[in-house]
Amino acid sequence: MEAASSRPGEDALIARYFAPLAGPEGLGLKDDVALITPPPGQSLVATVDTIVAGVHFFSDDPPHTVGHKALAVNLSDLAAKGAKPAGFLLALALPSDWTEAWLHDFTQGLGALARASACPLLGGDTTRAAGPLVISITAFGFVPDGTMVARTSAQPGDLIAVTGTIGDAVIGLKARLSPEADWVQKLGESELAFLLDRYLKPRPRYEASSAIRAVARCAMDVSDGLVGDCAKMLRASGVTGTLRLEDVPFSVAARAAIRFNPALRADAVTGGDDYEILFTFPPEQLDAVASAFKHLSVSFAVIGEVRAGDTPLTVSYGGESFEAQSGSYQHF
Amino acid sequence: MEAASSRPGEDALIARYFAPLAGPEGLGLKDDVALITPPPGQSLVATVDTIVAGVHFFSDDPPHTVGHKALAVNLSDLAAKGAKPAGFLLALALPSDWTEAWLHDFTQGLGALARASACPLLGGDTTRAAGPLVISITAFGFVPDGTMVARTSAQPGDLIAVTGTIGDAVIGLKARLSPEADWVQKLGESELAFLLDRYLKPRPRYEASSAIRAVARCAMDVSDGLVGDCAKMLRASGVTGTLRLEDVPFSVAARAAIRFNPALRADAVTGGDDYEILFTFPPEQLDAVASAFKHLSVSFAVIGEVRAGDTPLTVSYGGESFEAQSGSYQHF
Repeated sequence: MEAASSRPGEDALIARYFAPLAGPEGLGLKDDVALITPPPGQSLVATVDTIVAGVHFFSDDPPHTVGHKALAVNLSDLAAKGAKPAGFLLALALPSDWTEAWLHDFTQGLGALARASACPLLGGDTTRAAGPLVISITAFGFVPDGTMVARTSAQPGDLIAVTGTIGDAVIGLKARLSPEADWVQKLGESELAFLLDRYLKPRPRYEASSAIRAVARCAMDVSDGLVGDCAKMLRASGVTGTLRLEDVPFSVAARAAIRFNPALRADAVTGGDDYEILFTFPPEQLDAVASAFKHLSVSFAVIGEVRAGDTPLTVSYGGESFEAQSGSYQHF
Repeated sequence: MEAASSRPGEDALIARYFAPLAGPEGLGLKDDVALITPPPGQSLVATVDTIVAGVHFFSDDPPHTVGHKALAVNLSDLAAKGAKPAGFLLALALPSDWTEAWLHDFTQGLGALARASACPLLGGDTTRAAGPLVISITAFGFVPDGTMVARTSAQPGDLIAVTGTIGDAVIGLKARLSPEADWVQKLGESELAFLLDRYLKPRPRYEASSAIRAVARCAMDVSDGLVGDCAKMLRASGVTGTLRLEDVPFSVAARAAIRFNPALRADAVTGGDDYEILFTFPPEQLDAVASAFKHLSVSFAVIGEVRAGDTPLTVSYGGESFEAQSGSYQHF
């Protein structure tokens, strides 16, 4: 329904920008498909996540951070299932004003994370849309047969834990939207930079995937807010539980921001974009979990317990009930 | 960055509209991922194709045809690789004015083709975009190890063949855009209906996937125009060839349209949306190919030969050189 433009066609784009991101598994991107052969005794885990300009990132975000984020949100899902990254397909719907400079920088960020996580580009589809940029990535991982960590398998008595730190991204987003706010002004330069960066460039915990597979009974990644995602995981498992917000791990920068603006504590545990791993394990496994995480660059913290029943998740802060205004971020 | 609307959230949508499309492989859509275990001795073929409102379909197309088309274009890629459908992931970026009625009808069309092709929904992601509807489907198929039919393996001397009929969809699109045109007025009612339907509802040739795997040396699906796609396949194989347009199979309706408007012949072989399978095979295999297709509801026709060299594809019509205005449809 449209004429070809003077910009390079899909084949030229593939050769110029996408082929360098492909491993030998990518068939040189010369076919319409990817061929994936799991190693003997392993299954394939597949996940798709879409990020949209104006919803999941800003149109003027540095393109390399957009490329990073598009893959990161999918690597996070794989890590939470205990799967080792194996490759990805990229579906790109470009807005009418796309430029080669943008695409170049985008593929640099995408390629850097693909290399760091050993997750090569296997194929894709590029099209045009008279609307915002839409990036869908389907990522693949391998797990030994029967070892994928489900979202539906939490058991009463399990401890609830989370990796890394919570709330940095949403506080970074709020700082970006209100740079003149009193609490933002009070933050140190490096604290502010850390928080802004955590929104722009999520750090998916793919390094922890083996540890999660070894010790977790149930897991999911935290993308839509800790409290809401925890409630979702327990509901999917047919159980309930308690969350102690005083035990939720915050970064130094997030703690500073919360000190200057205590309302941010609620945002931190209900906002999205953490891309940490929420998981449960039997309490007698606590030493094994500590041992599994000891040599990783990511920490974990126990923040609650799973209980039998179908009542809503109980959330407390210092022994008092915590009423979150909204449990989970809705992307639509 | 936005408040939740009064329309159902993603979890409710999944339960109401998507869970019925999922097979037991879909983990009840309760996880963020799909777990895929190829049968012993088989590999996984994965492909992604995106369709965008205003580019690949019209915003006012019946929603069930949009659901059908979104899956059909991916099933077509699998069929051309000789892969048996195994399931799919759906990434949906909904425009701000989406309605439940639209989604209901969309999932009806999507589900009907998913059932017909034994390709259940395994998971997905729904988000919102302030732009046109964007639907990305990642489809999976299985092939016995080492038997995937590549796009890069045509050999000099091979015959070039194509399934079904060519040009119906693009002629249907032209009829839809110019309903008052003389040639459209001259078409019989059932001919016009056939052509319009072929644009709206591509018929992916998944029934032919076993035959393609058994007899084809090289194959791809025809989505961007027969002439351009043939040139692309031969280029990817490092060869060239000849195409005889007088041997290209046209439907009764397309022949009628071309009789009333001879310019449509060029459109038919360069327009897109055919979703037939273009393939090559050694000439001594002709009987085997005929035998493999005998019990299928889809026909095939030999339309050219592969030759050594890297000159452009030679296209002739009745012995005269055919200069196509444009070899391939560009979706962006």
